[in-house]
Amino acid sequence: MKYLFYFLIVTFSCSLYSQDLNDHKVFLDKIYNEALSNGQSYEWLDYLSNEIGGRLSGSINYDRSVKWGKDELDLIGIDSVWLQPVMIPKWVRGAPEYAHIESSPGNTISVPVAALGGSISTPSIGISANVIEVKSFDELSNIGKDSITGKIIFFNRKMDPTLINTFQSYGGSVNQRTQGAAIAAKLGAIGVIVRSMTTTLDDYPHTGSMYYDGLTLNERIPAAAISTNGAELLSSMLSLNPNIKFFFRQNSKNFPDVLSYNVIGQIDGSERSDEIIIVGGHLDSWDLGDGSHDDGAGIVQSMEVIRILKNLNYKPKRTIRVVLFANEENGLRGGNKYAELAKKNNESHFFALESDAGGFTPRGFSFDTSESEFNALKEFKDLFKEYGADNFIIGGSGADIGPLKDDKIILAGLRPDSQRYFDYHHAASDTFDKINKRELELGAAAMTALVYLLDNYKL
Amino acid sequence: MKYLFYFLIVTFSCSLYSQDLNDHKVFLDKIYNEALSNGQSYEWLDYLSNEIGGRLSGSINYDRSVKWGKDELDLIGIDSVWLQPVMIPKWVRGAPEYAHIESSPGNTISVPVAALGGSISTPSIGISANVIEVKSFDELSNIGKDSITGKIIFFNRKMDPTLINTFQSYGGSVNQRTQGAAIAAKLGAIGVIVRSMTTTLDDYPHTGSMYYDGLTLNERIPAAAISTNGAELLSSMLSLNPNIKFFFRQNSKNFPDVLSYNVIGQIDGSERSDEIIIVGGHLDSWDLGDGSHDDGAGIVQSMEVIRILKNLNYKPKRTIRVVLFANEENGLRGGNKYAELAKKNNESHFFALESDAGGFTPRGFSFDTSESEFNALKEFKDLFKEYGADNFIIGGSGADIGPLKDDKIILAGLRPDSQRYFDYHHAASDTFDKINKRELELGAAAMTALVYLLDNYKL
Repeated sequence: MKYLFYFLIVTFSCSLYSQDLNDHKVFLDKIYNEALSNGQSYEWLDYLSNEIGGRLSGSINYDRSVKWGKDELDLIGIDSVWLQPVMIPKWVRGAPEYAHIESSPGNTISVPVAALGGSISTPSIGISANVIEVKSFDELSNIGKDSITGKIIFFNRKMDPTLINTFQSYGGSVNQRTQGAAIAAKLGAIGVIVRSMTTTLDDYPHTGSMYYDGLTLNERIPAAAISTNGAELLSSMLSLNPNIKFFFRQNSKNFPDVLSYNVIGQIDGSERSDEIIIVGGHLDSWDLGDGSHDDGAGIVQSMEVIRILKNLNYKPKRTIRVVLFANEENGLRGGNKYAELAKKNNESHFFALESDAGGFTPRGFSFDTSESEFNALKEFKDLFKEYGADNFIIGGSGADIGPLKDDKIILAGLRPDSQRYFDYHHAASDTFDKINKRELELGAAAMTALVYLLDNYKL
Repeated sequence: MKYLFYFLIVTFSCSLYSQDLNDHKVFLDKIYNEALSNGQSYEWLDYLSNEIGGRLSGSINYDRSVKWGKDELDLIGIDSVWLQPVMIPKWVRGAPEYAHIESSPGNTISVPVAALGGSISTPSIGISANVIEVKSFDELSNIGKDSITGKIIFFNRKMDPTLINTFQSYGGSVNQRTQGAAIAAKLGAIGVIVRSMTTTLDDYPHTGSMYYDGLTLNERIPAAAISTNGAELLSSMLSLNPNIKFFFRQNSKNFPDVLSYNVIGQIDGSERSDEIIIVGGHLDSWDLGDGSHDDGAGIVQSMEVIRILKNLNYKPKRTIRVVLFANEENGLRGGNKYAELAKKNNESHFFALESDAGGFTPRGFSFDTSESEFNALKEFKDLFKEYGADNFIIGGSGADIGPLKDDKIILAGLRPDSQRYFDYHHAASDTFDKINKRELELGAAAMTALVYLLDNYKL
């Protein structure tokens, strides 16, 4: 029954298409068949996640992933593969963090915490202080410096569970993590604890970047994420007794920048080789898990785009590059360097596509371009309908390709289903077993399809 | 940026709506907010899966789940809750199955197998025989009775990985499991091994129902599922040496039917109480896992529909029932009994909605109704857009509600994302840890929304 239905849809739709769109339809089927029956992305990610693992900027694992990425791209047999040097930050977590709530002298309950990326260490004996729980920066500033001085600030605003797109919920809470320590430090706090950015209740602290906003070394205070279960416990204990103390200890450290690389592979264009299309994700990850969803998935999907096109013997009109960006998580140095050199070398980028929202079932794409261009691109929307990836929206694209933005380039991001992403995001639970092979492959296929269509767009 | 975009979409769309649709929009938001911030489905499923577990028809666990379902519905405080008696089959797996491939006398490699539901036992010492591998019934009948007699038939047709909807792939392979033994028995085979119905390569045998198609007890042969990794191994060993032997042992058994129940709860209609809307899933499951996705998810989502409407103090125009059906997996006795009594009692069913495709992110609904009715129902499609569940198709609905079909009732099925479903389907891996809370809740919200809209449809 369903077969017949799909057949009718396709038949009917095709009659509306130009011959071009008909040809595209045939090629898109080839792309999907290749991705789903002969895909390489899952095997690649198995290696990257399980043999290399977490690959924080500046770590040996990051360098290992650079070598791996280059070697695998070389094996595909494309026109060129190279490393693009870039100086990246090196922040090290150090020994595992420890924290407890002290309800009365000597009575402690340990809770899971993890230093936020970029945070300074506590003193080696840790810090212990009374806690002030707040939900917003306004609430904090209303409390005032006198009450805050010498305290630990506990930012406990939840991600809003009622928003369907979890990235919106994240956007509504993440400033506690990125700016909380800087704001609290200026008001006299000696440390910051931030509720993990996830809608789940679990025992994983979710790390992520934070910034000191120009504070001198002496003015900085340590900041850590606490698991959501830990945050619930701390909050309920504070409501019973505001005088409980919180203790935490971490010995994270910032080192001088180190040399590393973006990894780039290229198939030369056959007609407009000076117009460049790039597809990419970020090769670095946080250190707690193995970074399978953030952003190992985007890396292997981007590599798969190139492999599929090569394997189908497709000769692109434009030059198609895969870029494995360095240091998205805590600096964006890879994306900035790529854009800086593109400008310096007068390279013309026609289209850039990023996958950095997890390896889940693709629902569509977001486009960062003009409204008129977006409306023109909607011509392709129906082609993605039967693959379930036809949700085209205007919105962001990806952090790494953002620096390329000008008034010519079309930027886009793969938009997978977002429900599970923040269960794992930046936590020890972001591991390969959370990857579904078919979902990963469908993302790679959708990306390949869009790159193919854009290669044939506006010729 | 995205916020603004959504706002514009909603604002623009609303201007096209009638006042009714505007009111509906407001109520749908309430439904989703309740499901996502105060949901009960995940906690219910935790109990059903982890405290009761697998609940095969005729088992003590099935009876426990009946009691649990009735008790929980009673606690919601709706107008009435009752048990509907139905005789259901009782098939028992018995001791764990065992199987091995014997590559030469004494050299064996064990492989995971599980008896298919309904299969007879092997002799207590097991059976051992040469193996014939086939991909289709045509291939088997071409081999002919002489060659088949005394052999074990190995059905090894894979689910097609290139179909986007995995239920279509399942539909293209599952007849090996349901009919394979009957067909092979008639051609002289002494046993049947069927490749598990999943696109993954793993070590779980996936069970499921099979039928002997009128064969007498003496003519029946035992049938088991083999894990996909086991199937790959067996196939590759057969290609090297067609004379290897396969051994398997199982002591499954069919018992006489036993008395059990559908569980039903009801909110009386305020205007058209004689027009009935039902929402449901099946309370039974296979015995290997805990049946979290198949169909614990559908059960708790259906209960959640009633709880949400009750909690929002909604007074339905029509009578709304939740039905927890008995024995979908190996008999459909619950669905048949419900329809039989509905007819006998001259009940008029206006709409029936089933959730039996896993607790994954809902993508939309399938409708089993006339084309004109379907086109009218599309009026509601846009209301589901912002929730990502606006894929309305004509197709099947659900097995349990199927027997209600006539020319008046509108039948529908929740259609979640299908990529992960067959990873777990009918296997020991269908467990609660595979459930994502938000995905489950979004399904319950979408179902509640559709039930609410249909309650207000054609008044």
